[in-house]
Amino acid sequence: MSDHKPLTAFFLVLISAFTLCAQEKAASGEQPNKAVIKEVRGYRTRIREMIRTSLKHGQAYEHLREMCATVPKRVSGSPGAAAAVLWAKQLMERLEFDNVHLEEVMVPHWEPGNNPSLRVTSPANAESTRLPFTPLGGSVPTPLEGITAEVLEVQSIGQLRRIGDQAKGKIVFFNRPMDQTLLSTGQAYGGAVRQRTRGAAEAGKVGAVAVIVRSVSTRSDDAPHTGAMSYQDGVEKIPAGAVSMLGADRLSALLKNKKGVKVCLKLDSQWFKDELSYNVIGEITGSEKPDEILVVGGHLDAWTTGDGAHDDGAGCMHSVEALRLIKEMGFKPKRTIRCVLFMNEENGLRGGRAYYRAHLAEMDKHVLALESDSGGFTPRGFSSDAHKEAKIVLDEIAKLLVNAGAGKVYGGGGGADVSPMRASGVILMGFRPDGHRYFDLHHSRNDVFSSVNERELELGAACIASMLYVVADLKDTLKHNPAPKQRARR
Amino acid sequence: MSDHKPLTAFFLVLISAFTLCAQEKAASGEQPNKAVIKEVRGYRTRIREMIRTSLKHGQAYEHLREMCATVPKRVSGSPGAAAAVLWAKQLMERLEFDNVHLEEVMVPHWEPGNNPSLRVTSPANAESTRLPFTPLGGSVPTPLEGITAEVLEVQSIGQLRRIGDQAKGKIVFFNRPMDQTLLSTGQAYGGAVRQRTRGAAEAGKVGAVAVIVRSVSTRSDDAPHTGAMSYQDGVEKIPAGAVSMLGADRLSALLKNKKGVKVCLKLDSQWFKDELSYNVIGEITGSEKPDEILVVGGHLDAWTTGDGAHDDGAGCMHSVEALRLIKEMGFKPKRTIRCVLFMNEENGLRGGRAYYRAHLAEMDKHVLALESDSGGFTPRGFSSDAHKEAKIVLDEIAKLLVNAGAGKVYGGGGGADVSPMRASGVILMGFRPDGHRYFDLHHSRNDVFSSVNERELELGAACIASMLYVVADLKDTLKHNPAPKQRARR
Repeated sequence: MSDHKPLTAFFLVLISAFTLCAQEKAASGEQPNKAVIKEVRGYRTRIREMIRTSLKHGQAYEHLREMCATVPKRVSGSPGAAAAVLWAKQLMERLEFDNVHLEEVMVPHWEPGNNPSLRVTSPANAESTRLPFTPLGGSVPTPLEGITAEVLEVQSIGQLRRIGDQAKGKIVFFNRPMDQTLLSTGQAYGGAVRQRTRGAAEAGKVGAVAVIVRSVSTRSDDAPHTGAMSYQDGVEKIPAGAVSMLGADRLSALLKNKKGVKVCLKLDSQWFKDELSYNVIGEITGSEKPDEILVVGGHLDAWTTGDGAHDDGAGCMHSVEALRLIKEMGFKPKRTIRCVLFMNEENGLRGGRAYYRAHLAEMDKHVLALESDSGGFTPRGFSSDAHKEAKIVLDEIAKLLVNAGAGKVYGGGGGADVSPMRASGVILMGFRPDGHRYFDLHHSRNDVFSSVNERELELGAACIASMLYVVADLKDTLKHNPAPKQRARR
Repeated sequence: MSDHKPLTAFFLVLISAFTLCAQEKAASGEQPNKAVIKEVRGYRTRIREMIRTSLKHGQAYEHLREMCATVPKRVSGSPGAAAAVLWAKQLMERLEFDNVHLEEVMVPHWEPGNNPSLRVTSPANAESTRLPFTPLGGSVPTPLEGITAEVLEVQSIGQLRRIGDQAKGKIVFFNRPMDQTLLSTGQAYGGAVRQRTRGAAEAGKVGAVAVIVRSVSTRSDDAPHTGAMSYQDGVEKIPAGAVSMLGADRLSALLKNKKGVKVCLKLDSQWFKDELSYNVIGEITGSEKPDEILVVGGHLDAWTTGDGAHDDGAGCMHSVEALRLIKEMGFKPKRTIRCVLFMNEENGLRGGRAYYRAHLAEMDKHVLALESDSGGFTPRGFSSDAHKEAKIVLDEIAKLLVNAGAGKVYGGGGGADVSPMRASGVILMGFRPDGHRYFDLHHSRNDVFSSVNERELELGAACIASMLYVVADLKDTLKHNPAPKQRARR
């Protein structure tokens, strides 16, 4: 045995040992760019102080109170939405944001009307039972005398297609509940919402005369939940509304026990011509790289069942507060942080699209776009579609927010309004608050200011402000995502 | 240079490399007992199914609704508390728990009265301003005509001591707010609550005639928050009550602007003789080791400002539901899981102490005691004082609850009711829900059923059930903590 053999063996063992270490580091998410990690960690004290400031002196809650009191009704194209645009612009001016201005966007104008009703007309002993009801966003009205017909209950669009011939001349009642067993209420919503968005078009195809949809909600109460729906070209447009969850249960029970159940459905919703409206914009101009832009936003429009306190007053006030907080702290981020309050997320996404079109030339200078449109609840983290290298940086920033509850960046996109920017490779982010209460309130009369908690809202704003501030202030600019086509090619 | 020197050098490097790996493993929380880790992971599917079941069919929320509707007023020693004992026992019987029974405990009996009032009597232009007011738990009453005197505002007991001679004949107004900048509301509560618990004793020492305390709360509204206080032997007992946060702000502003501000304070609270009451107990008897016991509980008594929905109706219904869920799933844990609804946490802890005394002989068979007394909010984790080896197991169980939000076991104890068991080395745990909303409601009229969210409550129960079930079912019994004396000696 030569002297060198043990050496070789030791080399091998040694290499194995180091490899093991390296693999474990990789598995635990460690990464190579130590400089930027160190740079991010250097913000720890500033972030902690900003969070403390927000919990004591934050103004998101008071601004939201003012918003819900002053401009509670903000459906696209309405006088209320126009008032909200002016209110938001004045708020940004009051807070001395830079470059406060409006950007034009033509929006659809649909109004829900004032007297929706759903009444059981037969059998006789159930007659005049009224069920809480609201039009779906975009529904055509019924004739003044309403539509009276037999009710056909189905659980899904698939089931309707299978038994389509039975639906002719009837009112189709989509009664699919959200899957409450899912931990993610967003996922549960996704699984049930199609009956609302597509139900009328599908029922129209098989000759139904109207549609009733079980509210897509997590709370068994008497508040109906509205939401967007769309018709299909070439298919008869039939009226569609949402019944409350308890109302749906009552109607379903009646259908099980009685034959020939008829209801009378009345909607006085109305379509008008498109209106000129606006995205509302204000900035903190970057101190060193003012042409590089981070967008933060929510949507200013809201359904009028409630006051849009969580959806999306909270997101708007999160966004405004993020800028205000950064200013209050005296921070001077290198890049520009732009607050965009989008118009018409709920029924058209015209604001998000208009922003993208208007700023197409500077999309390569848009570093990141973060939307808050999941309510003003206690922070849980963020979502992002960032490429791996950028994700490492975002993860590291999130770690500064562990104690605030937002220590994690999940996979996923931003929000609807910022989604057009994906086409240009802009990194998208969404703020992720706790989701258990959201669909109790969402699109219903329960979405009012009193359902918002002050600390939860302010803390959300502080987390968003933290994420924006650090990304906007880092030495190196985060690289864009590969454009979607390139990604598809890989 | 001999051939051996490089070998020695390599040895050293190799050892360093392995040491580094080992240190990293230790730092990342890895540990040696692979068998128990594997065993815990084997529960993943069962836990997931139990969580799904709880979100769909959980009954904690409906039981809490019934509790708040049937026995809302449960202050120790009162007829309401007696009714709650019977109601809770019948609930456990209805749910077919094993060994349902009551255990006697003598409790103090104090009643808050019906007509607390706090009115500004001078200066003339502020006269008759009424401020929302409630007696602190345990306060003596005022004479029928009330106590009218000048007000001296202080921020702390320390300040009162320094200016004690000014307090003679006056009403001392402790106006220290909670430190809202803290992320932990519990910590903020701890920093402000002493003026409530000790204020009357301290003010009595310096000749004050009554005490007004700013509500220890996170929400600026007109709901006063009560809570326990105690007198000191040999010091004059003076009446003490809490004013709402907005009321405190108004009073403080008045004191800043005017001289000689006087208020009239009336309390008709009353002390009675001690009453016989009960802890309410039910079990799932262990299938293999029935003499080994896990306790889960909350406290049945509550202040009567609200209905004790979160404090601690939620904890009681969490505990009952934990057992019910485990039974519904058909799980047969090896050890006994005992639900104890303690009486008199708020003003005496007599129930917790009585349980400990009555079961002292079997304390060595008490494996773990978990209390839920922080409200019914969205789960964030647990706290525990477990020794290192047990903590590793609890951490691993918590990892099964990451998606439910309760993936972490923090340091800290259990709750007040289980705390006496610490003396015998029983591992204590607390359920840790999100705390941002708790002190908005705590001990005030806002602590009612409508402030509880169904999914949040049910999910909390499922997390507690999961933790209990796995610990109760593991092959090996978790070892006790070293007894406190031993710990002190180290």
